[in-house]
Amino acid sequence: MRPGGGFLGMWRQLARIGRSSESGGYRRFAWGGADAECREWFEEQVRARGLAYEVDRNGNQWGWLGDPARGDAVVTGSHLDSVPDGGAFDGPLGVVSAFAALDELLRRGARLTKPLGVVNFGDEEGARFGLACVGSRLTAGALTVEQAHRLTDADGITLPQAMEAAGHDPGTLGPDPERLDRIGAFVELHVEQGRALDLSGDRVGIASAIWPHGRWRFDFRGEANHAGTTRLTDRRDPMLSYAETVLAARREAELAGAVATFGKIAVEPNGVNAIPSLVRGWLDSRAADQESLDTVVEGVRKAARDHARQHGVTLDVERESFTPVVEFDHALRDELARILAGDTGRAVPVLGTGAGHDAGILSGRVPTAMLFVRNPTGVSHSPAEYATEDDCVAGVTALADVLEGLACT
Amino acid sequence: MRPGGGFLGMWRQLARIGRSSESGGYRRFAWGGADAECREWFEEQVRARGLAYEVDRNGNQWGWLGDPARGDAVVTGSHLDSVPDGGAFDGPLGVVSAFAALDELLRRGARLTKPLGVVNFGDEEGARFGLACVGSRLTAGALTVEQAHRLTDADGITLPQAMEAAGHDPGTLGPDPERLDRIGAFVELHVEQGRALDLSGDRVGIASAIWPHGRWRFDFRGEANHAGTTRLTDRRDPMLSYAETVLAARREAELAGAVATFGKIAVEPNGVNAIPSLVRGWLDSRAADQESLDTVVEGVRKAARDHARQHGVTLDVERESFTPVVEFDHALRDELARILAGDTGRAVPVLGTGAGHDAGILSGRVPTAMLFVRNPTGVSHSPAEYATEDDCVAGVTALADVLEGLACT
Repeated sequence: MRPGGGFLGMWRQLARIGRSSESGGYRRFAWGGADAECREWFEEQVRARGLAYEVDRNGNQWGWLGDPARGDAVVTGSHLDSVPDGGAFDGPLGVVSAFAALDELLRRGARLTKPLGVVNFGDEEGARFGLACVGSRLTAGALTVEQAHRLTDADGITLPQAMEAAGHDPGTLGPDPERLDRIGAFVELHVEQGRALDLSGDRVGIASAIWPHGRWRFDFRGEANHAGTTRLTDRRDPMLSYAETVLAARREAELAGAVATFGKIAVEPNGVNAIPSLVRGWLDSRAADQESLDTVVEGVRKAARDHARQHGVTLDVERESFTPVVEFDHALRDELARILAGDTGRAVPVLGTGAGHDAGILSGRVPTAMLFVRNPTGVSHSPAEYATEDDCVAGVTALADVLEGLACT
Repeated sequence: MRPGGGFLGMWRQLARIGRSSESGGYRRFAWGGADAECREWFEEQVRARGLAYEVDRNGNQWGWLGDPARGDAVVTGSHLDSVPDGGAFDGPLGVVSAFAALDELLRRGARLTKPLGVVNFGDEEGARFGLACVGSRLTAGALTVEQAHRLTDADGITLPQAMEAAGHDPGTLGPDPERLDRIGAFVELHVEQGRALDLSGDRVGIASAIWPHGRWRFDFRGEANHAGTTRLTDRRDPMLSYAETVLAARREAELAGAVATFGKIAVEPNGVNAIPSLVRGWLDSRAADQESLDTVVEGVRKAARDHARQHGVTLDVERESFTPVVEFDHALRDELARILAGDTGRAVPVLGTGAGHDAGILSGRVPTAMLFVRNPTGVSHSPAEYATEDDCVAGVTALADVLEGLACT
């Protein structure tokens, strides 16, 4: 069997679950129907290989080769949920590659000296409850049980209610330090969400750090009025201040070499013939370092403030979430680089990323690393998200090499 | 009884219906629950006065003093539905004033020589099905039955389904020329939706014309992508083109002395961490003449096209509705001016307006006029919409004078 030969079979099974025929994208939201199908698939894969299956107190799924109680375990995996109309690769590539790499290790006849785990973290994307990485955050103690209980979806269903409806007891939620203490290394493989590997001509790269990032809500409040009869000079139109701020965010991000996006908006009353009373826009911004990020956000705030004043509009800005820079474990990163270079001496690219991951959450508690697989367009969180079959197989091989290097010492 | 003495009683009854305790505004949408309550109220008012009650084939409600079959009828009224979170006056002031003016005529002992009608037109605001003046358009043949059948609300409910659910047979929809042929004059009283009367110091004015106006849908299509990992240079972000276009619309309107508004937006996927694939914005624009309006819309289109190209975004613009300038009947307008001036010789202000009205639709088939009542702030389509009690009473008196002048000749 070719390395990763079982990859395509697994990929085709998953590809059917939660795909919208309308958009061609995936709608696999935490604790919903498509998520349940993905979780059944994960359990089947674990059991088919004779691994020990368990669901932890926060609903994350694990498969074990060897007894994790022995400690110093090597774990790999990712998540199976998606953003709304997301792509096929973000998450599933890491889970499918984990099983395929394990198969490859066994094919090689590798003699594991440490327990090896495959994991599917719950609710990584936060598409339903608005907070990313809920499963790993709870496990790492980075989200309290009280905070988790307050998470609510668009239909008013709380996270505990959704878990219970999906057959998971929400009474067990909470930090799980014993579980984390048994892990010696966690490696998450993920499709790249940019074009660095495409530009450098490499199939696989290693993560250096996750950029600091945050979300800010900008509330521009003006005065609802009739769009046909209100003179321009009598208007307090918050859409104008919003538009100026969107353009300011782009300028500030360009100046700082960062990224800034207004991708979500809510307007009241949102009528064709009504000047809005409220335009609420969300800024997502990320940068390679904290200082650059602060510069961008302060610049956007100032522009928003100035333009709000100019249009007779009031402004409130609230930071809804913030994650400082995450530096992955340097020793583990160097170890991966050494393993992947092998006898060739060829350096594997080391990349920063603007995306959050369960690996970023775990890195506060466990030596953690990430592998990226080339994305020829850089497109992610979209039905057009893509990696070639050859690059996916290269990812599986690299992950198998890494697991062998870490777990067969 | 003081002129309009029954006004406050009627006003208080209506004020309770469909008011949001959250916004303080009204949510009376065609064929919904609050609309049904308003319609019941109308029927009660008609029956309490011993008028003949009828609902026409398009769901408009009528009350008749005298037999309309005699022809040359004088009709007054307006509508009771609202925009989302609308004010108390837009529509209801014209209906309540109609009943109060009729009461005042009877109090004066006026000897009517023509049939007198009071009307409540259905679905004037178009808040639910996206098209304004559906009841009067159907009656006037300005909307075909086929077009009406295609109207659908945000929940996918069609206009015929909504009518049927509200107890009105949609099988009767269609033009009603006989009904219109019996009307010799239609006068709609309405709260002013600007500040012209406030600036001139008059309580009541007469409409000259309704500005030409239209709605255009701008679809900016880019590429959904990850907001954290997609380099600025790799983005095709339609929010940027939208923002540039919003600001261009304001500039073009200023230059032309017109109005232009982007008050409604729909974004896909509308996620905080997703560059949008689609930003759909609606332009509402109006001007005193056709040439100015064309200049504004062409300027906004050009700006949108240029900025879309600059950001790698595609643009589709569709005109969703358009109403040419409406000049109200000159003879009727002069007659109203003569009646209202009375012996004082004081000229009543004659105003253009940017708002559409059922009177504008009917003016193509029937001699039509409008009276405006002063709005001290000019605010409309908002909970802050307002007219003083004294000005409302002045409006009732003016309407009574007009009806007496027209129907007692």
